[in-house]
Amino acid sequence: MNDTTSSAYDRAFLADFRSMSTVGATAGGGVDRQAGTVADGQTRSWFRGLVEGHGFEVHYDEIGNQFALLELVPGAPYIAIGSHLDSQPLAGRFDGAYGVLAGAHAGIRLGDRLSAEARGSNGGEAPSAPKFNIAVVNWFNEEGCRFKPSMMGSSVFTGKIPAEQALATTDPHGVSVREALRAIGTHGDFTLDIAAYLEIHIEQGRSLENDGLAIGLVESTWGANKYEFVVHGEQAHTGATLIADRADALLGASALVVAAREVADRFTDDEHMVITSCGEFTVFPNSPVVVASRVNLLVDVRSTDPDVLAAADAELHRRIGEIERSANVRVERGAEHTWASKAYDEAGMALAAASADALGLSHGIVRTLAGHDSTNLKDLVPTIMLFVPSVEGITHNERELTRDADMLAGLDLLTELTGRVVAGDFVAP
Amino acid sequence: MNDTTSSAYDRAFLADFRSMSTVGATAGGGVDRQAGTVADGQTRSWFRGLVEGHGFEVHYDEIGNQFALLELVPGAPYIAIGSHLDSQPLAGRFDGAYGVLAGAHAGIRLGDRLSAEARGSNGGEAPSAPKFNIAVVNWFNEEGCRFKPSMMGSSVFTGKIPAEQALATTDPHGVSVREALRAIGTHGDFTLDIAAYLEIHIEQGRSLENDGLAIGLVESTWGANKYEFVVHGEQAHTGATLIADRADALLGASALVVAAREVADRFTDDEHMVITSCGEFTVFPNSPVVVASRVNLLVDVRSTDPDVLAAADAELHRRIGEIERSANVRVERGAEHTWASKAYDEAGMALAAASADALGLSHGIVRTLAGHDSTNLKDLVPTIMLFVPSVEGITHNERELTRDADMLAGLDLLTELTGRVVAGDFVAP
Repeated sequence: MNDTTSSAYDRAFLADFRSMSTVGATAGGGVDRQAGTVADGQTRSWFRGLVEGHGFEVHYDEIGNQFALLELVPGAPYIAIGSHLDSQPLAGRFDGAYGVLAGAHAGIRLGDRLSAEARGSNGGEAPSAPKFNIAVVNWFNEEGCRFKPSMMGSSVFTGKIPAEQALATTDPHGVSVREALRAIGTHGDFTLDIAAYLEIHIEQGRSLENDGLAIGLVESTWGANKYEFVVHGEQAHTGATLIADRADALLGASALVVAAREVADRFTDDEHMVITSCGEFTVFPNSPVVVASRVNLLVDVRSTDPDVLAAADAELHRRIGEIERSANVRVERGAEHTWASKAYDEAGMALAAASADALGLSHGIVRTLAGHDSTNLKDLVPTIMLFVPSVEGITHNERELTRDADMLAGLDLLTELTGRVVAGDFVAP
Repeated sequence: MNDTTSSAYDRAFLADFRSMSTVGATAGGGVDRQAGTVADGQTRSWFRGLVEGHGFEVHYDEIGNQFALLELVPGAPYIAIGSHLDSQPLAGRFDGAYGVLAGAHAGIRLGDRLSAEARGSNGGEAPSAPKFNIAVVNWFNEEGCRFKPSMMGSSVFTGKIPAEQALATTDPHGVSVREALRAIGTHGDFTLDIAAYLEIHIEQGRSLENDGLAIGLVESTWGANKYEFVVHGEQAHTGATLIADRADALLGASALVVAAREVADRFTDDEHMVITSCGEFTVFPNSPVVVASRVNLLVDVRSTDPDVLAAADAELHRRIGEIERSANVRVERGAEHTWASKAYDEAGMALAAASADALGLSHGIVRTLAGHDSTNLKDLVPTIMLFVPSVEGITHNERELTRDADMLAGLDLLTELTGRVVAGDFVAP
């Protein structure tokens, strides 16, 4: 590729990114494409149209993961590059979507390059014969807002959740995943074995921006324990029931939110960090003059260190016992999801670093606090995870931003890295 | 009335109460008749059918208050007896509804007695010539769950809220009070001047049951400050945003709920009581992996003593300032409603006590922690407020219960008291 071609490729990527961002667009400059909704279906159709125009074949598996296959070597095994096109409500347009589109464009660029080499029009360089085919994957329901848990599609693909269980999961209106996937026509029976997995994603944090780096090489995920709690009290009249007679579920749940933050503050030290969060908190019956009978809330505890995570988790549960007594409520522990802190493939990080060096892109090692589809995939196949910078780390917010130059640098690296992986530099065919 | 007649009246009241309780009935033995809903409209129609069968005329005023007029003396001024037929979601069947039905039955009994006296069939007693007519009133939207604030109908009637403002109020789906009233056909232009007001209600507390009393004579309301707060944070990804970068509206709002309870605990002493509550608490966007950008919550502070109320309120606001700093949020103070602790008419309490003594009913003096329509009416006309016992004080709950014998004792007293008031023993015609 010479500069002119590269610029044409860059303009094509940015044009496609702008086009994609109009699907499910929100007034505030973001997108709302919750999994299995009409907007998610429209985004999937848009993506299908794009890649089919470039010679990919599109298939859906039993949990609605969307596979765009680019065959370079008939019969060869597949390397997958993926992320997700679904979003949070009122989300930014980069989270997940950037990685899927970058994967498609990396495939398009590589396919063009290999065709040019086959025609001998690459100025006489030796052809780098590909040993793998490419599958660009849009994993279903990474966000987990409409249907829980998050990373559902990659969890089913990697065998961590049975497909039947995921398909039977319902949203707050009682619609199942199976019904939602059928309604948008993206429920299939395709299966695929993959040999390795690559993902590029916006950092959703500030470290690359703070350090002035173009690329983050993800070293490990944090460990995380995610809990669904139900705080049970007794419904009563706020204007008539004395404090001594109350069993206020809202008070108990509020105390739990405050306690979770105190645990994070207490267990974070110079060496290790603990982060606790509560993003969903629903009060019943939620009427102005009624003492709440019940609050459903999700709490998660994350840490870079497994021992610190265990200690923080134990402290949180001790505090819950205290809250049950002091607020006169019962705290029920429902479903939970945990994942241990785990490292990405070291050889993959080295290959990514070498690819970045070859392109003159600055890079550094980062950890991902958030879960990604690669969190699941790395337990199945050798996996490489890359980050590009997020302005001010703002994410899950319509103001989320990754600059064009940073998106293009990431795409250049993903293309280079995919070329090397497809040539057999990461895993053997 | 002899015993046989009295029993027939009692049976009729209990049959009507059971019939009324089927309107908007819930599976758990309660009712759901939120103001202006179809179920509220059905209850109003049911009530209209009942009282028209007994010779009342029914009218609606500009805010949908339902007036059932029983003319005893053509052209005479009116005494109002009232409460409310609307309910909380999943509420008990006694709150408000008992008082409206008891008012209607007191009117029916008095009307029959006066007819009997006019025919000389009362065994030769001197006729007690009535000097007032009777208006039984079902005040619109006492509960304030669908449309805020509570006690809306009586607030408009007493001039505390402009009718236009109340009519323009919308529910969470954007439906206005005006639209809701028109949809159920109970928006009118009737007006009425009243000379005095009587209300009977379930206690919604335990004091009568604990003291073994049949009747509570309400001495005063508690003072109350009710606030609508909006806690503003910044939407972010729970799985990617470091604690230092968060402005978590849910954490701030939870800390406010906990602080409100601590204020109640701290300011309650042997002499005075402070009660704080939060019954409505709504999180945006309320997604599992999103740091909340906003929480809307209602907090109220009540006390039997105005100075204690002022001190507790000041402490709550000092704590809010602390929370803004520690949780990195901004707490906006929206609409507020306050009412001072205020006494009911002393002569009215004495007349009610004498009436109870005449019937051999045990009674004691109570305060009402909850607001009632009489809280508004007592600022307009001389007002008498009566309570009957609530089992275990359970209320705003499907398990709310007032026993038949207690309902009937209250109805006997309301009938006796209304007879005396209509005869001119409370206010001059």
